[in-house]
Amino acid sequence: MPKRVDPEERRQAIAEAVYQVIGERGWDAVTLRDVASTAGISMGQVQHYFTTKTDMLMFALSHMRDRVLARLERRLAGLPRPLSQRDQVRAAISVMLPLDEPGRQEAAVNIAFFSAATATPGYAHLLRDGYARQVASATAQFTAAAAEGRLNEGVDPGHEAAALYYLIQGLIGPVLIGQLSPDQALDLLDHQLGRIFRS
Amino acid sequence: MPKRVDPEERRQAIAEAVYQVIGERGWDAVTLRDVASTAGISMGQVQHYFTTKTDMLMFALSHMRDRVLARLERRLAGLPRPLSQRDQVRAAISVMLPLDEPGRQEAAVNIAFFSAATATPGYAHLLRDGYARQVASATAQFTAAAAEGRLNEGVDPGHEAAALYYLIQGLIGPVLIGQLSPDQALDLLDHQLGRIFRS
Repeated sequence: MPKRVDPEERRQAIAEAVYQVIGERGWDAVTLRDVASTAGISMGQVQHYFTTKTDMLMFALSHMRDRVLARLERRLAGLPRPLSQRDQVRAAISVMLPLDEPGRQEAAVNIAFFSAATATPGYAHLLRDGYARQVASATAQFTAAAAEGRLNEGVDPGHEAAALYYLIQGLIGPVLIGQLSPDQALDLLDHQLGRIFRS
Repeated sequence: MPKRVDPEERRQAIAEAVYQVIGERGWDAVTLRDVASTAGISMGQVQHYFTTKTDMLMFALSHMRDRVLARLERRLAGLPRPLSQRDQVRAAISVMLPLDEPGRQEAAVNIAFFSAATATPGYAHLLRDGYARQVASATAQFTAAAAEGRLNEGVDPGHEAAALYYLIQGLIGPVLIGQLSPDQALDLLDHQLGRIFRS
């Protein structure tokens, strides 16, 4: 009797393999065969999930949110208590920077998807949804912090939440190509947080 | 006797064709044939300048700075006098946003190059040089403005010049895919300029 395979487990393993190969070789060089080999399964099994590179990219993108949130939870769990709102904002926003290998892989997937979306408007709505959700979440955090008197006087929570979010987006590429070190990127983030937050 | 061709003119025409086809179809779909057809010349003539898509991308990138600077000069020439330092910074920084078709084409070329650079570290130094030069230029402008008392109290010119530069980098993608309108992006920029500049 053949071994039963948990489809969800298989899906996760493939998704992780996709990130690994994109992180190692970049999007342009990746093949379905690389993914199969990295995941330790057959090409046929990979093709059960996606038949083209585009399908593979969509698949990786759909997996992105789970990966990032899991990393954020681990990071928050490791921070000393009590957590200030500034600590929470810093963790939620710096998790998007390519400061470690998983973050680097996600940044490479994201850039590949952006490149594809400039040519294929159909993909762009997936990216727009993700951005809109994240900016809304940052804005809610800043508005709550303002209501509790945690922001410096004169700080506009809506503008500053969006500006900080897009600043981080603008730091991803430069960190990825080594133009900024992780420490330099975090220093820019911390300078803005110090300006915005009272404590 | 065959017509004499000015090599620099030909080069410019090909570079413009590269931007046009990347802007229309995205990087992934572009072929040397598309470029030849758009530039109105033969494949052989295109191949005189580049033999692979990678050569084409390098060629487009080397042409980027001239394009952006020419656009900036036209924009500055159209602004009412006298030009404040804030006006100049705003023009120099907003010229990088995809607010019109040439800007959109440049953003698409830039993203394609980034995607390639994540896979091929050799390209990354070209991007790093460009970033470093632009951040240095923004920092010099902010430092001069601070020396003349044009910045608000407590503003750190180095941090704020870099943060504003990378904020704009982070707005390029969202404007390109329609997540932010040009007006929303400029509003975020103006909010930061209003915070940083005294006048």
